[in-house]
Amino acid sequence: MVHISKKGQLMPESPIRKLVPYAEEAKKRGIRVYHLNIGQPDIETPEVALNAIKNYDHKVVEYSHSAGMLSLREKLVEYYRTVNIDLNPGEIIVGTGASEAILFSFQSIMDPGDEVIIPEPFYANYNGFAVNSGIRVKPIISSIETGFALPPIEDFEKNITDKTKAILVCNPNNPTGYLYTKEEMESLRDIVKRHDLFLIADEVYREFTYDGKKQYSAMYLKGIEENVILIDSVSKRYSACGVRLGWMASKNRELIATALKFAQARLSPPTFGQVAAEAAVDTPDEYFVKVKKEYLARRNAVVEGINRIEGAFCPKPAGAFYVVARLPIDDSDKFCRWLLEDFDFEGQTVMLAPASGFYSTPGKGKDEVRISYVLKVDDLKASIRVLNEALKVYPGRK
Amino acid sequence: MVHISKKGQLMPESPIRKLVPYAEEAKKRGIRVYHLNIGQPDIETPEVALNAIKNYDHKVVEYSHSAGMLSLREKLVEYYRTVNIDLNPGEIIVGTGASEAILFSFQSIMDPGDEVIIPEPFYANYNGFAVNSGIRVKPIISSIETGFALPPIEDFEKNITDKTKAILVCNPNNPTGYLYTKEEMESLRDIVKRHDLFLIADEVYREFTYDGKKQYSAMYLKGIEENVILIDSVSKRYSACGVRLGWMASKNRELIATALKFAQARLSPPTFGQVAAEAAVDTPDEYFVKVKKEYLARRNAVVEGINRIEGAFCPKPAGAFYVVARLPIDDSDKFCRWLLEDFDFEGQTVMLAPASGFYSTPGKGKDEVRISYVLKVDDLKASIRVLNEALKVYPGRK
Repeated sequence: MVHISKKGQLMPESPIRKLVPYAEEAKKRGIRVYHLNIGQPDIETPEVALNAIKNYDHKVVEYSHSAGMLSLREKLVEYYRTVNIDLNPGEIIVGTGASEAILFSFQSIMDPGDEVIIPEPFYANYNGFAVNSGIRVKPIISSIETGFALPPIEDFEKNITDKTKAILVCNPNNPTGYLYTKEEMESLRDIVKRHDLFLIADEVYREFTYDGKKQYSAMYLKGIEENVILIDSVSKRYSACGVRLGWMASKNRELIATALKFAQARLSPPTFGQVAAEAAVDTPDEYFVKVKKEYLARRNAVVEGINRIEGAFCPKPAGAFYVVARLPIDDSDKFCRWLLEDFDFEGQTVMLAPASGFYSTPGKGKDEVRISYVLKVDDLKASIRVLNEALKVYPGRK
Repeated sequence: MVHISKKGQLMPESPIRKLVPYAEEAKKRGIRVYHLNIGQPDIETPEVALNAIKNYDHKVVEYSHSAGMLSLREKLVEYYRTVNIDLNPGEIIVGTGASEAILFSFQSIMDPGDEVIIPEPFYANYNGFAVNSGIRVKPIISSIETGFALPPIEDFEKNITDKTKAILVCNPNNPTGYLYTKEEMESLRDIVKRHDLFLIADEVYREFTYDGKKQYSAMYLKGIEENVILIDSVSKRYSACGVRLGWMASKNRELIATALKFAQARLSPPTFGQVAAEAAVDTPDEYFVKVKKEYLARRNAVVEGINRIEGAFCPKPAGAFYVVARLPIDDSDKFCRWLLEDFDFEGQTVMLAPASGFYSTPGKGKDEVRISYVLKVDDLKASIRVLNEALKVYPGRK
């Protein structure tokens, strides 16, 4: 038999997508499935972005610059000015989604065997990118009791070896929704500086903050300008996941020059995604006012709803559009599958993401699920009701 | 100083793009630069593809299936039927360009240290993808004297070790334009079968064949169905490089399941590229008749023009839109830079790709250049005239 790579065997299956066949079966049985499992918002993509695509009038869809069209990078610089981040177009490398930007970052700073420290639970695909790059994720456990605040900095310190090349944080966080404070970011600055590590900051949910709080970007940190790699994307900000347009930004010229070589090998990022992204920067402020108001109402509906369920607990995070909730269950993988295979309440069920897929420490997250609040408030309320009924009869209830 | 990876240091600079700054300088001096250096056709993208983009009417640009939209994969199956290749949608994984499809293939079948054999000169970015994946390219030299025909199969045999996992061929070939014969493909089938290797066949130039010849796909080969990985793309076929839409196809289920995990980690390929690609399959036949006629005239103009230059030699390949020509020069890297920095003829110069970048054996290709015939015949003739004049005065002329 021809040879499948070890790397390929090690690649994790997506914790979100592995339940998809069961959801499809449930739908075939006529059951309505509420999808709270994936970060695909139902919010409309801004018209200004869709119109730019409609108005594309080139006769040949050509390669663009490997780092992305200059006009797009200039526009991104303009966007960053509005959030008090000073960048120039030469400090940005556009990728096919933040996904590619993360891969470029990992590959530019780490060789096989090197390590990146990430507070867990973390965005499951970081694992995939790590396996892809042959590097190791060292997880530092954050706790639901503290609402998934940054773990004590000593926990990071203890895990730094000569293989450690970077710390990665997602802020606001996927999957927890936690918004890191200025003080937490500064403690990361100190440790990164002390050990001369990169700080990879995935800030794709920057705009989605609630309760009057604002995101404190890694780009605001003084004295580690050469260490910060910013990861960003239009997917969530403008509800445009399908355009596959993200980027990395850094003041570190050597890093950018290196990442550009990876970018050149694949020629260029997608033209239409770039056109949409460039236009999206001009999305009117009212759009965000409306969207944030909507997400806030959803978050409140989910958090309050879950906390009313006996034995369940959900912190009230200040960012993104996810929560990780603790449920009175034996095993979230089993529970999430059971919801789709063996349960319905008045012809309805819910699809959740088992939190185990967001931990790399074995056994963690077994009584936790991630919920994306990407549905309308009424549907969320209906989902929580279904979840409540499910927990009354789930055989693995604790 | 923070750490740049060894991999990042090893990543090759694009042999095509490294001359770009010199071309820009030349333009600033008012010189007209004929771009024969890059495979960016001037042919118009089919209207049917551009119209599909204009008519996109979804309100939310959502993630698609990680393997690509089912409707696109079904359409590709339809396309393959027209070239007598039998595939089903589950055997196709859509990527962001053939670039990503090649990366998925490399990563799914090779671990760091493993080897892939490729006849050289070869498409330079294979090197980048290899470094990216930590694998090694073993080049087998093909010769300009034979028009870059497949090297003797013994040369492959000699280079197979227990690290060898695949042979890769690009057919029709970039950079040489060579079209492999049925017999050559069958000799590859035999060696692949004997050693149970994968045969990665990059067939993105399938339609561009001349002199009444037709491409013989690796998918036609009997008895190695589990070994063949087809790489394909809309970039060249429909002159739509910027949409970044390619794919891999294979009858090997284990391979497809593995590649899908890499695809899932990056969520999905670009939606608009998929929309354009799906529509492009319906491009009317007249489009290709016209395009092929155009490319044929261009090939003839280039080949005949170069062969009229004293001391120069250019084979007459039957495919793609490239030739590799031998020029009476000391060093093609120096020559191509000199053309941009120190030369003009009546205010014009040409930008060529030094062939050295398409070889991985050091020192090879020093008197060869790759020419992409992606300009109109009159411009090509003017370019050849400029090249002729340049060779009269180039200080490194041999």
